[in-house]
Amino acid sequence: MTVAVETRLQARLDALAAVTEPGEGVTRPSFGPLEREAHALVSEWAREDGARVETDAAGNTVLIYGEGEPYLLLGSHLDSVPAGGRFDGTVGVLAGMEAAAQVAGELELGVRVVAFSAEEGARFGRPCLGSELATGASPAGLLDRLRDAAGDSINDVARATGLTPEACEPWLRAPAVAAYLEVHIEQGLVLEHERVRLGVVDVIAGADRLAIEVTGYAQHSGTTPMAGRRDALAAAAEIVLDVERVGREARHGVATIGRLDVGPNSPTTVPGTVRAVVDVRDVDAGRQRASVEAVRAAISAVAERRGTPATVTSLASRAPVMLSAWPRRALAAACADAQLPYRVLPSGAGHDAAVVAHTAPAAMLFVPTPNGRSHAPDEACRTEDIAAACVVLAGALRRLDHDAAGAAALPDPDQEG
Amino acid sequence: MTVAVETRLQARLDALAAVTEPGEGVTRPSFGPLEREAHALVSEWAREDGARVETDAAGNTVLIYGEGEPYLLLGSHLDSVPAGGRFDGTVGVLAGMEAAAQVAGELELGVRVVAFSAEEGARFGRPCLGSELATGASPAGLLDRLRDAAGDSINDVARATGLTPEACEPWLRAPAVAAYLEVHIEQGLVLEHERVRLGVVDVIAGADRLAIEVTGYAQHSGTTPMAGRRDALAAAAEIVLDVERVGREARHGVATIGRLDVGPNSPTTVPGTVRAVVDVRDVDAGRQRASVEAVRAAISAVAERRGTPATVTSLASRAPVMLSAWPRRALAAACADAQLPYRVLPSGAGHDAAVVAHTAPAAMLFVPTPNGRSHAPDEACRTEDIAAACVVLAGALRRLDHDAAGAAALPDPDQEG
Repeated sequence: MTVAVETRLQARLDALAAVTEPGEGVTRPSFGPLEREAHALVSEWAREDGARVETDAAGNTVLIYGEGEPYLLLGSHLDSVPAGGRFDGTVGVLAGMEAAAQVAGELELGVRVVAFSAEEGARFGRPCLGSELATGASPAGLLDRLRDAAGDSINDVARATGLTPEACEPWLRAPAVAAYLEVHIEQGLVLEHERVRLGVVDVIAGADRLAIEVTGYAQHSGTTPMAGRRDALAAAAEIVLDVERVGREARHGVATIGRLDVGPNSPTTVPGTVRAVVDVRDVDAGRQRASVEAVRAAISAVAERRGTPATVTSLASRAPVMLSAWPRRALAAACADAQLPYRVLPSGAGHDAAVVAHTAPAAMLFVPTPNGRSHAPDEACRTEDIAAACVVLAGALRRLDHDAAGAAALPDPDQEG
Repeated sequence: MTVAVETRLQARLDALAAVTEPGEGVTRPSFGPLEREAHALVSEWAREDGARVETDAAGNTVLIYGEGEPYLLLGSHLDSVPAGGRFDGTVGVLAGMEAAAQVAGELELGVRVVAFSAEEGARFGRPCLGSELATGASPAGLLDRLRDAAGDSINDVARATGLTPEACEPWLRAPAVAAYLEVHIEQGLVLEHERVRLGVVDVIAGADRLAIEVTGYAQHSGTTPMAGRRDALAAAAEIVLDVERVGREARHGVATIGRLDVGPNSPTTVPGTVRAVVDVRDVDAGRQRASVEAVRAAISAVAERRGTPATVTSLASRAPVMLSAWPRRALAAACADAQLPYRVLPSGAGHDAAVVAHTAPAAMLFVPTPNGRSHAPDEACRTEDIAAACVVLAGALRRLDHDAAGAAALPDPDQEG
């Protein structure tokens, strides 16, 4: 059985990895035709498994393995960053399909798998567009406002593949959705370093993204004495180290400058401008705010001391999301049932589950990323770990179905502990 | 007289500034057709002044105002960096023409003005190609080896405008060239801050250029704890500040990182690589070497401490060049004769005069750069200061001619007083 599952998972992962733009790794842009092709592929496989397929106006594909409401929902996404990996998102959809196919016939509740559209923020600068539309969380005007590098809006791009996201009716919410479970690669090294095969996510970190711009004075590097300089890069270098310090001081948080652009970026010119993006994440909302304040204070201090004015603009601010105790416990119990060691850990990355958690009980299961890399062509994941996740998902579905059948009402998703 | 000179200088500067690629500032790429057009323009003006024009195979244009050998040579260059200023180079050629036209009839020695080709290093990564070819200093194979961003070699590009730089016979050397004088904008703020209208350059700084590459490990910024990171940008930030410290500790030297590129440069990825270029300059060769060693040691220490290997490659290493006492003194005496306050100062930027100084006595006169900016569209220079430089050049030519006529032999250029 497990060998058959691993063989099928491998074949499906290979088939999805082939749906890509040319070049290294996997490139399936959000709302693009290749994303649609991947959705068509999993729909075809689901139909072969006997499932019925529905697609909403935002391109979220729902594979109905067991009819009826309330239903248990599994899933993840099928788009990718440019030159990304083959496991990010796909693992959750394929594992969900395996588990749903396996248990649908046994359950009181319905069972569905969703492949969300447009989870990656790479194309339009905002992640989880599909799950936001499915849950009704999408801010007004967003679909015409956000544009990709080519200048096309979400609506432009989606309409070209026959979708009409602005017409999407929110459908993903309790009580119709009893619970949502998402398997995803960890995208980090915590499980790998601790040699644990599965992770039950307790909280998805909040994230603040700040754009900073430092203004110095661009002058000839040979003719400008050190004393008269206003070097935007030297100022930015202090800021990079301050951000690192803030990250280190936030015990479970991180702070990163991943993007930094120098102007005019000539070897013989003292840098006149630096633009950079600061990414601050934390599982605790208060500490997240404190880290952002510490970063802002450090930037002001450097600007003041060096005479290099700096502006700070908030690009995004997302609070941490605590996942629901009921489906989390079902995942943990299913790990124990299968004698698969697991560890409870936070997610530093954002996921559709964090969006779904606002309208239905949601939980996540991580599988290890052997080299810790994601969003890169050498992203890795062991098929045996995905198969183990399928076993746990199936066990969790049985437990949730049993709980729901035994309860007068479904537990309140906002009621933790 | 001075008003006429200012009017003519202004008109000629305007005409040369119009010889540019479209866009902000002046763009006249080295060895390109627009550089040739600028050379044709000054040749035409020289002929109107009664001069004879010769061009060598490397495109160096020689305007012969007074026949005979030995001769006094004035000059500078007419190419520009992309989006550069209208004064860099042009001022030296036009001021030389004014002074030569004025005094040629009075002198025993011949008088010539050279417009060197290809002084800027922006296109092929190496400056002073024209003066190197004229003095025979050009390394073998260079003309086929160096390529511009389009992949064209110097020979490819030059041949397209009818030049054959590889066939250039060196001609610029003593005793035929009695002395070389170059007027140039300072490209810094020393004269402006001291409210002095002219600068006599004593030494042209040496320069080391080092390419550094720092290798970290690119990982997801949200899922990688601070403790496990090897952040190439944080390492590079320490290096930027170390380079600044080395520059500050070198009393008359500078050290700069003007160019820095982050990979993959994504807001949500811990930087995996940083490439940067370090520019170290000093007027003292020993201190220059010590600064380079200090920079290398700092880079090694950061790499070691952070586990982010760094490579350092020398792109260029040029020793400081002391300019010749004889023509320097003539310039200083001519300033005093004209009651124009001057100051002796080093040049942090490289110039054709540093190349010429290896084969003939050479000196330089700086005019102020009001905002300290050069290699930028807002590069500025006052016409009255250029006119003052013309007066001093003419005076220096008379003094040099007088000295040479009175001496049994020309002074040894290597014999500093």
